[in-house]
Amino acid sequence: TNSATHQAVLKDENLITNIEEIAKDTALLHGVLMRTKETPNSPEVVSYAPFTLFPTPVPTALFHQALAVQTHFNRLVDRVSQNPSFLEETLASTIKVDNFTARLFNIYKQVQQEHCPQSIVLGLNRSDYMLDHSPHGGTSLKQIEINTIAASFGGLASRTPDVHRHILKVTNLPEESKNVLDNNPAAGLARGLAKAWELYGSERAVVMFLVEDVQRNIYDHRYVENELWKRNIPVIRRQLEDVCRTGSLDESRRLFVDGREIATVYFRNGYMPQNYTSDKSWEARLMMERSLAVKCPDISTHLAGTKKVQQELARQGVLERFFPDEPETVAQIRATFAGLYTLDMVEEQHC
Amino acid sequence: TNSATHQAVLKDENLITNIEEIAKDTALLHGVLMRTKETPNSPEVVSYAPFTLFPTPVPTALFHQALAVQTHFNRLVDRVSQNPSFLEETLASTIKVDNFTARLFNIYKQVQQEHCPQSIVLGLNRSDYMLDHSPHGGTSLKQIEINTIAASFGGLASRTPDVHRHILKVTNLPEESKNVLDNNPAAGLARGLAKAWELYGSERAVVMFLVEDVQRNIYDHRYVENELWKRNIPVIRRQLEDVCRTGSLDESRRLFVDGREIATVYFRNGYMPQNYTSDKSWEARLMMERSLAVKCPDISTHLAGTKKVQQELARQGVLERFFPDEPETVAQIRATFAGLYTLDMVEEQHC
Repeated sequence: TNSATHQAVLKDENLITNIEEIAKDTALLHGVLMRTKETPNSPEVVSYAPFTLFPTPVPTALFHQALAVQTHFNRLVDRVSQNPSFLEETLASTIKVDNFTARLFNIYKQVQQEHCPQSIVLGLNRSDYMLDHSPHGGTSLKQIEINTIAASFGGLASRTPDVHRHILKVTNLPEESKNVLDNNPAAGLARGLAKAWELYGSERAVVMFLVEDVQRNIYDHRYVENELWKRNIPVIRRQLEDVCRTGSLDESRRLFVDGREIATVYFRNGYMPQNYTSDKSWEARLMMERSLAVKCPDISTHLAGTKKVQQELARQGVLERFFPDEPETVAQIRATFAGLYTLDMVEEQHC
Repeated sequence: TNSATHQAVLKDENLITNIEEIAKDTALLHGVLMRTKETPNSPEVVSYAPFTLFPTPVPTALFHQALAVQTHFNRLVDRVSQNPSFLEETLASTIKVDNFTARLFNIYKQVQQEHCPQSIVLGLNRSDYMLDHSPHGGTSLKQIEINTIAASFGGLASRTPDVHRHILKVTNLPEESKNVLDNNPAAGLARGLAKAWELYGSERAVVMFLVEDVQRNIYDHRYVENELWKRNIPVIRRQLEDVCRTGSLDESRRLFVDGREIATVYFRNGYMPQNYTSDKSWEARLMMERSLAVKCPDISTHLAGTKKVQQELARQGVLERFFPDEPETVAQIRATFAGLYTLDMVEEQHC
């Protein structure tokens, strides 16, 4: 019925025109911001981030299903990241053809051999779903992908419930306004980062957000930064380039960037091929991985999130290897799998 | 000592450069927004409203003095607005030379003779002060002016405490951050408007914000609008032009604009000479004043806020006429007066 009311409103073109300006102003006032394409590195003028006019209704059962299965996914990512032979076998064909993954994998191998001094890793994973409406009626939850590095929009999403509540109110749907759930992923992400900072154990050390040179989505990060500042945890933002230029390890492999000791490296960028423009970039990545700083995520978790691994996990019998005594966990994870098809030039069995 | 720390920070040019971007982003994220000069009527790109990097320290005693005297000022404005002979005598010389005040005064006289059907008036006054540092040491509170119509920045000011707290925190002044007082004038203004709406007594009637055609400062209003929506009180924004075109009174002098019954007219504009570009504008103003809608403010309160009245109130013996039995009230108000000098071409006694 929520959907039906939305539909009625959406067909009222006059109403849509009237609330367009209010909706945009509401997003702006609530900080659902994005810098402009023209001036992505300037705080002088900003715009609203793309948002839907109304919240998307999600069936209660599927919502709870997604919440419940996330813990299983987090454990799965963790187990995959700690299974060198699985990663090596799975990525073998990718490494042969993809230089970027090959170089990541080299760093991974080197760090493994050296025994990285930091055993603590922070994983902040984001699972993306679509609702699959079957032709026979019935709706199911299908995972599109899981992001194990630099997952975005947890910050801005913390503000959208209030935006939608207000839009529903001015659209004369105050009852629906009450159905919008609270959501504060920024606080949740910051809680994880704060824990990592605390476990690192140095008051003067800082959390480093590794950011891109084009910063259109900076406000998404700012929410997480601000939550950390609220806990009196200092945050600095640096680019891979800054780490190349000023980064170093001391004899205990503590990481210093611009003279600041880094407790936690939070990848908001530095995970895509285009960031590695020189050998210097690769040296900087290796330096961070070898360091005592808690990585969010470390390189093995980065590799565990590649599409090739996701595809392998969808093959028959593979999930069972990671949860040998948990058929229920396997079933819950597998229930969310959509088909994944290889781009390899070989015949493969689809799940 | 707060001031001293600020001074030290302000002398550190490096630090200022570093926090400039963070400060601007903080203002943007907290909704201290203003539209741009180039696109004042578009919600596509916005900027931050002007703000100070640090909050201004105010001596505790002067802060409490300002709070205490405000009630007296509100009563004074109310009494002046209800004293026709005082208004007439005081404004006589202004009316002779200033056509705008003369036309306002004509409306005032007409409404008085007709006995306006609405006896409820809402006053939302803003008193502006500067701190006067005497050459002998000692700081005192001096009133610059009192605004009885369309006083701005109560909305944006509701968000600046959090902006300053965050800036102080990232500037490594967390202790000072705790000294920033909470302030939510948007909620206070909305409380007054909600009360006026409630006393008007019709569920379907709306609050009309009378706004300008150039809407750079719209976000300041939006905070008050949003507080009203939270109370399920509908708000519409209309220009004087809209009232000219679609406004009407029914036989009970209920005001309708665009087919909506208006419970409360909240002047955010429509009070300056440049708004009255035609006889139509004056007719619209008269229509609103004659109506059953609660005006914030009504025309007599508008007139009570003119500079000429302020000047007259500063003359010896005048405050005593309004508070004959309250020498303490008179003394508290007068203590905040700075010198006001006439622009009339006659000799006048300065207070």
